[in-house]
Amino acid sequence: MRDVAIIGVGQTKVGEHWDISLRHLALEALQAAMADAGVTQADALYVGNMLSGELTGQEHLGALVADFAGLRGIEAFKVEAASGSGAAALRTGCAAVASGMADIVVVVGVEKMTDADGPDTIAALAMATDADHEAAHGLSLVAVNALLMRRYMHEYGYSHQDFGVFAVNAHRNGANNPYAMFQFPVKAERFTTAPMICDPINLLDSSPVCDGAAAVVLAPTDVARTLSAAPVRVVASAVGSDTVAVHDRRDPLVLDGAVLSTRRAYGQAGVGPDDINLFELHGAFGIMAALSLEAAGFADRGQGLRLALEKGIGIGDRVPIATMGGLKARGDPVGATGVYQIVEVVQQLRGLAGANQVQDARIGMAQNIGGSGATVITHILERMG
Amino acid sequence: MRDVAIIGVGQTKVGEHWDISLRHLALEALQAAMADAGVTQADALYVGNMLSGELTGQEHLGALVADFAGLRGIEAFKVEAASGSGAAALRTGCAAVASGMADIVVVVGVEKMTDADGPDTIAALAMATDADHEAAHGLSLVAVNALLMRRYMHEYGYSHQDFGVFAVNAHRNGANNPYAMFQFPVKAERFTTAPMICDPINLLDSSPVCDGAAAVVLAPTDVARTLSAAPVRVVASAVGSDTVAVHDRRDPLVLDGAVLSTRRAYGQAGVGPDDINLFELHGAFGIMAALSLEAAGFADRGQGLRLALEKGIGIGDRVPIATMGGLKARGDPVGATGVYQIVEVVQQLRGLAGANQVQDARIGMAQNIGGSGATVITHILERMG
Repeated sequence: MRDVAIIGVGQTKVGEHWDISLRHLALEALQAAMADAGVTQADALYVGNMLSGELTGQEHLGALVADFAGLRGIEAFKVEAASGSGAAALRTGCAAVASGMADIVVVVGVEKMTDADGPDTIAALAMATDADHEAAHGLSLVAVNALLMRRYMHEYGYSHQDFGVFAVNAHRNGANNPYAMFQFPVKAERFTTAPMICDPINLLDSSPVCDGAAAVVLAPTDVARTLSAAPVRVVASAVGSDTVAVHDRRDPLVLDGAVLSTRRAYGQAGVGPDDINLFELHGAFGIMAALSLEAAGFADRGQGLRLALEKGIGIGDRVPIATMGGLKARGDPVGATGVYQIVEVVQQLRGLAGANQVQDARIGMAQNIGGSGATVITHILERMG
Repeated sequence: MRDVAIIGVGQTKVGEHWDISLRHLALEALQAAMADAGVTQADALYVGNMLSGELTGQEHLGALVADFAGLRGIEAFKVEAASGSGAAALRTGCAAVASGMADIVVVVGVEKMTDADGPDTIAALAMATDADHEAAHGLSLVAVNALLMRRYMHEYGYSHQDFGVFAVNAHRNGANNPYAMFQFPVKAERFTTAPMICDPINLLDSSPVCDGAAAVVLAPTDVARTLSAAPVRVVASAVGSDTVAVHDRRDPLVLDGAVLSTRRAYGQAGVGPDDINLFELHGAFGIMAALSLEAAGFADRGQGLRLALEKGIGIGDRVPIATMGGLKARGDPVGATGVYQIVEVVQQLRGLAGANQVQDARIGMAQNIGGSGATVITHILERMG
């Protein structure tokens, strides 16, 4: 198996891009990544996307984006794992390079959510849940998370306002990220008065509906050294899965898929939680951030939120999360999010994260979650040289 | 790169399965393939599917099918390339095994098309075309093929009834396939009077809307020899792409994506058209069959239909196609079709194709096409030992 490196990254600003089509968004990120990598051709393109069929009437994004980007003729597919689609596409790209089937691979995550009506978008997102056993009974993705959050508060004795710590951290970091959707801080007091969306999840605890695209270019590490001044090695690429329907889980407050995914990633990289300098976790809602911290071994059961409250998640703290704003402030264009996470870890490892730089960041972990934990994809990246 | 082999295959009958859900269909094929391979676990599952979001409100099929099949915890994604999704999933599985990231991989192609209203299904299928530049102007997938067929007739002087040869061949072979949707022959005379669907494409020239699932189990060849009495080696797995919108093509009557895909596959396998004992091509419409024969080097430009008319495509002829009924008679559950093709080639190479057996079949080729030629995935399989 060949070692894989990231030699270029690119992203669009996350936001409501009513004036830009899906393919243009993808193109912008892809071109930025290829320019960053200094390449003009690729052997394969994998597109991470969840909703293009439902919301824009377009499937077949692989060939479409490849052609639009001037890469007509190359191998190109779309990979889908709900909100884990971005990292699933990256994982597919890593396998292509590792196997020797491709040398230069471009991975693009793209999502266009704001052209549709709100209810349509919420219904489309619910396709990440079990259509027969959750969505058909009215459960949306936010509702599933609300149930988990309520149970977490009940079982461990946290107050609702405790969860504000994740939003405050995300917005503080997003304020310094020019690609973030929300580039402003929020005060903890605001969390308690934010409009309720699905009790107990409120507006400041929810990642926004938005548009965006992010891209990375992969190459074998030996090629990477010749092409890039600052390649980043993919030292782990691992997936774990669980039931889609939360009621079928062994324990709803333990993300077994994340436990498996992280354990496999640590094993591949030969590292543990103490070696991770930053962790771009999938904080689509605060409850997911808390459960992810626990599943990845940064906190014991029920202590993920405690870790956050005790100043464990900021830049310079024990495990910096959402260092560029995370899903809450950078935004969560679902199928693109997994690739944004990778772009941001690379920025950190290159020392290009500006005011949000994690000092001496050498090893970063990104974890992209499909649905409420059914697909969990973990990548660990390490600075080369 | 490790060599990859197929150690098990399974399929459901293709048809209108109103009483079986999407996940049950996938399960049936998956269990059959795993039983055939003699395995009870797998490292990864890749699901080929195009329409589950649009037609059944369910995305996130990877984790869903994995859990439903008792494989909770393993890596699982959906791969999409319109009607090429099945082979795209297989290609992804081959990369996972070749890279060493996985040993035992299950690939399932599944599609449930008949639960939706007809117009919804046709609209969903049009997502394989360019949404902005084709579908938005009313072009369906069959309409695109109708334009190509009309042009082919005009340019090369064929009559409409000439195209009946593909339907007659497919139905003759489908009559002997217990998994085919249409297990009866049709007479050439019937072709000229069949109801018109989209002039000049009529009912007997169109693959049906249907449900079905097919699955294969992959392993490294060294492991395959210990597990299976009749493993089949994947000697080529190659992809070519082209513009999605047909009007942007270099030449609408040349499938450049298929030319690239086939050339790459021949290169990997070290073979040429004369070495191929059977060719499961993507004959969703007769015109696609004709163009595929030309792109793969079995006939010169404009001569694909001539080859068929001169008894070149039957069992025992120069290049047997649709040997188990093809898309027309076996059926075309779009995201599953690419895996059905593989299952059928394996049956032929194992000598288990019954009345449709191609004598001494040693090397078979399957080609799965997304849309009207934008994604073309070619696999060449060879009997081991």
